[in-house]
Amino acid sequence: MLDAFRTAAAYPQGATAVSLPIDIMTKGTKTSIPALPATAFTPPEYGTSPSASLSRAASMIQNAKFPVLFLGTRAATPDAVQAVQGFLRKHPIPVVETFQAAGSISQDLAHLFFGRIGLFRNQPGDKLLAQADLVIVAGYDQSEYDADAWHKSQSLEILHLDWIPADYGAFYNPKLELVGSIAANVKALSDILANVSRPQEFEVAKSIFTEFHAWEQSPQALGQTGDGPIHPLYFIKLMQGMLPPSPTVSSDVGSMYIWLSRFYFAYSPKSFLVSNVQQTLGVALPWAIGASLSQEPPCSRKVISISGDGGFLYSGQELVTAVQQGCNITHFIWNDGKYNMVEFQEVDKYGRSSGVDLGGVDFVKYAEAFGAKGLRVSRSSELEAVMKEALSYKGVCVVDVEIDYSHNHELMRNVIQDNIS
Amino acid sequence: MLDAFRTAAAYPQGATAVSLPIDIMTKGTKTSIPALPATAFTPPEYGTSPSASLSRAASMIQNAKFPVLFLGTRAATPDAVQAVQGFLRKHPIPVVETFQAAGSISQDLAHLFFGRIGLFRNQPGDKLLAQADLVIVAGYDQSEYDADAWHKSQSLEILHLDWIPADYGAFYNPKLELVGSIAANVKALSDILANVSRPQEFEVAKSIFTEFHAWEQSPQALGQTGDGPIHPLYFIKLMQGMLPPSPTVSSDVGSMYIWLSRFYFAYSPKSFLVSNVQQTLGVALPWAIGASLSQEPPCSRKVISISGDGGFLYSGQELVTAVQQGCNITHFIWNDGKYNMVEFQEVDKYGRSSGVDLGGVDFVKYAEAFGAKGLRVSRSSELEAVMKEALSYKGVCVVDVEIDYSHNHELMRNVIQDNIS
Amino acid sequence: MLDAFRTAAAYPQGATAVSLPIDIMTKGTKTSIPALPATAFTPPEYGTSPSASLSRAASMIQNAKFPVLFLGTRAATPDAVQAVQGFLRKHPIPVVETFQAAGSISQDLAHLFFGRIGLFRNQPGDKLLAQADLVIVAGYDQSEYDADAWHKSQSLEILHLDWIPADYGAFYNPKLELVGSIAANVKALSDILANVSRPQEFEVAKSIFTEFHAWEQSPQALGQTGDGPIHPLYFIKLMQGMLPPSPTVSSDVGSMYIWLSRFYFAYSPKSFLVSNVQQTLGVALPWAIGASLSQEPPCSRKVISISGDGGFLYSGQELVTAVQQGCNITHFIWNDGKYNMVEFQEVDKYGRSSGVDLGGVDFVKYAEAFGAKGLRVSRSSELEAVMKEALSYKGVCVVDVEIDYSHNHELMRNVIQDNIS
Amino acid sequence: MLDAFRTAAAYPQGATAVSLPIDIMTKGTKTSIPALPATAFTPPEYGTSPSASLSRAASMIQNAKFPVLFLGTRAATPDAVQAVQGFLRKHPIPVVETFQAAGSISQDLAHLFFGRIGLFRNQPGDKLLAQADLVIVAGYDQSEYDADAWHKSQSLEILHLDWIPADYGAFYNPKLELVGSIAANVKALSDILANVSRPQEFEVAKSIFTEFHAWEQSPQALGQTGDGPIHPLYFIKLMQGMLPPSPTVSSDVGSMYIWLSRFYFAYSPKSFLVSNVQQTLGVALPWAIGASLSQEPPCSRKVISISGDGGFLYSGQELVTAVQQGCNITHFIWNDGKYNMVEFQEVDKYGRSSGVDLGGVDFVKYAEAFGAKGLRVSRSSELEAVMKEALSYKGVCVVDVEIDYSHNHELMRNVIQDNIS
Repeated sequence: MLDAFRTAAAYPQGATAVSLPIDIMTKGTKTSIPALPATAFTPPEYGTSPSASLSRAASMIQNAKFPVLFLGTRAATPDAVQAVQGFLRKHPIPVVETFQAAGSISQDLAHLFFGRIGLFRNQPGDKLLAQADLVIVAGYDQSEYDADAWHKSQSLEILHLDWIPADYGAFYNPKLELVGSIAANVKALSDILANVSRPQEFEVAKSIFTEFHAWEQSPQALGQTGDGPIHPLYFIKLMQGMLPPSPTVSSDVGSMYIWLSRFYFAYSPKSFLVSNVQQTLGVALPWAIGASLSQEPPCSRKVISISGDGGFLYSGQELVTAVQQGCNITHFIWNDGKYNMVEFQEVDKYGRSSGVDLGGVDFVKYAEAFGAKGLRVSRSSELEAVMKEALSYKGVCVVDVEIDYSHNHELMRNVIQDNIS
Repeated sequence: MLDAFRTAAAYPQGATAVSLPIDIMTKGTKTSIPALPATAFTPPEYGTSPSASLSRAASMIQNAKFPVLFLGTRAATPDAVQAVQGFLRKHPIPVVETFQAAGSISQDLAHLFFGRIGLFRNQPGDKLLAQADLVIVAGYDQSEYDADAWHKSQSLEILHLDWIPADYGAFYNPKLELVGSIAANVKALSDILANVSRPQEFEVAKSIFTEFHAWEQSPQALGQTGDGPIHPLYFIKLMQGMLPPSPTVSSDVGSMYIWLSRFYFAYSPKSFLVSNVQQTLGVALPWAIGASLSQEPPCSRKVISISGDGGFLYSGQELVTAVQQGCNITHFIWNDGKYNMVEFQEVDKYGRSSGVDLGGVDFVKYAEAFGAKGLRVSRSSELEAVMKEALSYKGVCVVDVEIDYSHNHELMRNVIQDNIS
Repeated sequence: MLDAFRTAAAYPQGATAVSLPIDIMTKGTKTSIPALPATAFTPPEYGTSPSASLSRAASMIQNAKFPVLFLGTRAATPDAVQAVQGFLRKHPIPVVETFQAAGSISQDLAHLFFGRIGLFRNQPGDKLLAQADLVIVAGYDQSEYDADAWHKSQSLEILHLDWIPADYGAFYNPKLELVGSIAANVKALSDILANVSRPQEFEVAKSIFTEFHAWEQSPQALGQTGDGPIHPLYFIKLMQGMLPPSPTVSSDVGSMYIWLSRFYFAYSPKSFLVSNVQQTLGVALPWAIGASLSQEPPCSRKVISISGDGGFLYSGQELVTAVQQGCNITHFIWNDGKYNMVEFQEVDKYGRSSGVDLGGVDFVKYAEAFGAKGLRVSRSSELEAVMKEALSYKGVCVVDVEIDYSHNHELMRNVIQDNIS
Repeated sequence: MLDAFRTAAAYPQGATAVSLPIDIMTKGTKTSIPALPATAFTPPEYGTSPSASLSRAASMIQNAKFPVLFLGTRAATPDAVQAVQGFLRKHPIPVVETFQAAGSISQDLAHLFFGRIGLFRNQPGDKLLAQADLVIVAGYDQSEYDADAWHKSQSLEILHLDWIPADYGAFYNPKLELVGSIAANVKALSDILANVSRPQEFEVAKSIFTEFHAWEQSPQALGQTGDGPIHPLYFIKLMQGMLPPSPTVSSDVGSMYIWLSRFYFAYSPKSFLVSNVQQTLGVALPWAIGASLSQEPPCSRKVISISGDGGFLYSGQELVTAVQQGCNITHFIWNDGKYNMVEFQEVDKYGRSSGVDLGGVDFVKYAEAFGAKGLRVSRSSELEAVMKEALSYKGVCVVDVEIDYSHNHELMRNVIQDNIS
């Protein structure tokens, strides 16, 4: 029960603890334990850190030549996001975010955004961190991206902002902790800071920024690689253009989650849902159902969910719930007939793959068995029309997308070799 | 690895231990551990107990007025079954078996069989045990049916036969253990025993036996209760008549598993597969696939699997495997649109049910999405024809059976109230 | 490592994380992992709660007719104690404390102190809580005294002050949490509060207070019960008079810890050391060694430790360390030749005791075997002189005190029957 | 409860299961669960393996050129020992034993005994195994001496005899298992075997045997290394000569347990008690008390226990029990003022030692504090007289022996480097 409360504690709305009555049978006698009175739990409001601590933090930032802001999951709450964006408008510095903090940076601040980091340490944001002399880490949970992965050197100066004290260790060793309201402390710092360095204007940062955006003009993203199965970059770029500013997009686990985590942009917090720590195959559709039901009013806006074909079969039967509840969900299956992420790791480790072939399912008919609409697309030239139909459909629609994973292995090999040490 | 071997040890065929090569990456260096040499493991042959122990056991049996034979999972091996049946032909006494020992009694010995026991203690076999002054327990594992459930009195005299020593405790407290080959010890006892009491001829036993078989002539079993959804007893009786002597029947978990465990008769060991201890919803179809693939030649004979509609959705996507592997499986879904076993327990405990409604799936179309044949039957009068079509179909066939669960709650209530104390 | 830091975080002095170099042997090859750089960990400074939260808290206190202050372990830090005492001088209200918060109330505030609570719910402080309409709980950890023990009614209004959010549940359900520096928040409340009720002036409170102090004039405490073995109350009262204001007193576990926790007064925090949660027999002497070594300069002031005879034998061999390190410790053994706390519980539950007899050790000679001084006292009339000698001895001295536990069982029976419900 | 029974099952005497009454308090209501009826548990008698298995086993033995008998803990029961010794008299082959099987070989068979193996793989018995083409393993539990330590090659042909099936794996991979009574199967094999090879007559075996006994004539064992502290070999040789044939000797853990396990000979089973798997410091004296109390009549014969000075302080206070119960125990403390086994491992791994210094205890006075007799010896020349006095003392006597551990580190270094690969 506590965990639910503690999670809830990051949000201003509060929560209600409910208990059920319990009957216990002992030697034929029934003892009834009545339900506990429902308790309206109000999470505590956190305050600002002591002014001495704030002054020390401000000095650290002002003395830094290359400060970088690093946003984690607990910095992706509405009040923290508002404070962070206010800070950046006044004191522009480069920002990276974890997968879970997706959407913390608004479109007007995109010139400060150096992408997401997590899982493999080979992304532009990782290169940026390697240049930093101060990392301002806000709302970060080490389970998002292990500190021993992104901070092998143990030598970065870290300023920790959170309402939870740092889980201090060899790899996550903040010089100073501001424990209290992230929003209040960010705002307080913003107010007292004067001259802050602008590392995004340094050549090295500009070069990383350019590298970060290079893919957008690649033949793959522009759909110029022939009319066969759909390339992930083309899918993502096309979809991003067809969606309203920040719809809820729910990602499953697998190769597609690497593509989406790197290349799908979100501009409002909690609008891109991704499983990282637990790597639970099959989460995309159930999360989409939850997101749809928690809209106000329920099921009022389109929710997108995306999975591989293997992941979809883990929980595809939840379509019955989605349909019965009147959800408004478009689910795209990136279908390559394989457990692709398992396959390329097997090839990497053992020189061949084994037991990864899927296929044999008619997903259109499968969708129809649950009362959902089914669509299918296997050529790049048809993607735009099918995507339009799927996104405009009111109700639950499943789209079987024949995906082009021909470069996945290469990409992953780079992932492993590109390690910054 | 050991568990696999130990399980294998009950069988005479032996087993092979295989190990895979392993690569371990440490700080960028790969260490390769080669595969271990494949080892042909031959399980040990167990012998006969010392003659002094056998004499003591024989005395116990000869002195008993009401001996009952209780067969568990490890008595359901070919050699043990042969020895047990030889014993019973020479020294006929009543027999009960756990769900896992299903099929240990052949049809010619059916007059000695008082049914299966397990889960709830309200079956004819339980009543029989309450009359016994000696229980000869062979190959029983306490996880099949907890001894504190069937032996509350702690006062039964127990003779233990197994190749595993008794897991001795307050409720399972054998007076004597014959640890060794079950087959060899049963045969040795059979040889040295002279006059053994025949409790099946006592009035109380006859009355229990009559009660055990009463359902077979009930209107429900005869399909005389109107032409609506199909009654479980009618389904079971009809199916039993249409199957070859002992086909493999795989049962899922739920209300249907109670019906099948009580009323479906099997006459050869390991031909009725039922999950009891772990209560794993969704096992029926995967087990059926395994049973089909392990036939010699693979997939050569029809395998039956049966589940509820809720259980089917746990693992229905395995149809793709069944179809791709060329299995010969008929899967019956007993469909009542609910999690029935959860429902009646909720009603019993809380006075109402919640969150148990299913429905909304077109199982015929679902089957077709995986390349299987789909059939549907909703009236008793149509069952025979549909069942015949389904059983004669070569390949994978799913049958959606509208089931009549209107009496389940009553039945269960009896289950709970009938406790023998 | 974290736990050490978190514990350290309650103190202003900081801490240093040290790691050792590690050698790992794999297949004959040694890999050396160097020591991590020593990191000087500085615990975060906590701030004040938001003013809106403070206002709400002030209203709760001002509206209460019978507010009670409840101090736990994390309120026993120097800065929190200073703030709490400042609060009480300005807004006098009754106070209770857990065993671990012993010493938080100074002698000049003793008229507000209603004793310690914990373990059994039958103390004056528990009676006081039963009268309260608001409990201000500061720095309390539920492991000190389970909330389901002292708050069965679940209906007390609770205001939570701590730098750790409440471990919210059915029994510990604060209406409001002030999460931040206990000292800062107590001081802030003290400043903004105007009229606070003075429940200590109510008749019911006066009566509880009188009951709380009644023992001090009892014949037992005054040593007027004959010249046999020493009564616990006489020992405590005598010792309290002979000690400087707040020496470090370390208590073992057993019957003696109940006597000391109830009747020994301490007036500065962390000066009375008691194990409660883990109930570790034998802790008194090792703790005393630690306390002695951590003095500045080490071993400069007398430390008292007290145990039973059974508990002493758990760790008495640590005398060798105490002597070798030059500690200045007087250890009193309350010797009744039994495991007394086990004995009276056995008698209570089974009507007789078993396996609790000790005895047969010459503790004077035992002390001498380790190079310590040994003393012995078996009559009340001799206690004062022996205690004086023991306390004035420079070095390690063990005193074998023949204790009068004749009333322990009665006392415990009261404990169980006095339950406030 | 089961474990106690299973352990008991190795012995012919049986055991009795006892349960205590339990009172459970729930919400103020006491439920009394009466004691279960005391059940006289009779462990099962195991029989002989099937004759086909025995024939296969006999062939394996007859075909072997270099068979070695390997005895483990479950082969050290009276009936198994008798059968094994009968086998060896008829079919003499070399024998090794684990520490736990100490005493399985009688003095008249000492010419076949190649010593104990365990812990480190550098003993004569290990060298012998490296020559074997068949190892007959009887009653061996892998926790005694890990199979991956003594059987790295995985290529030895193993014949397994036990009443427990083999815990089969890569390193313990018997070709054949005789599961049943060890005594009965050994006897059956003895009867049907004809010509068995005598590897003890091979040169390589003779050379190993000579090496095994070389120490007995060393200056250290003969006490010819000067009149300082006592050398372990001199102590052991002297003690062995002064004891009756097979007294109970209880060994603590530490350097002394390596010396005793290698060099102390016992000629009847269960007469040398050694902790190996759990490495529990302080076991020697409590075990000695148990051994003394379980004699018939209790405490009738002298029991020897031996520990280091560090290990003695873990449980020395049990002297009070030994004295009160009237035990007849002589406890020798091998006193070097250090945790020696920790010290030499620290030096080996880190180049220096830390935190291992003990000392400062007068063990003579310590013994007297508990009512035991205390003696002390610090020169080789005095050992014989003191040992004689200690062994002839009726009651509990503690002897503080100043031990010469000057060669321990060297010895251990050999231990590590001598690995047979």
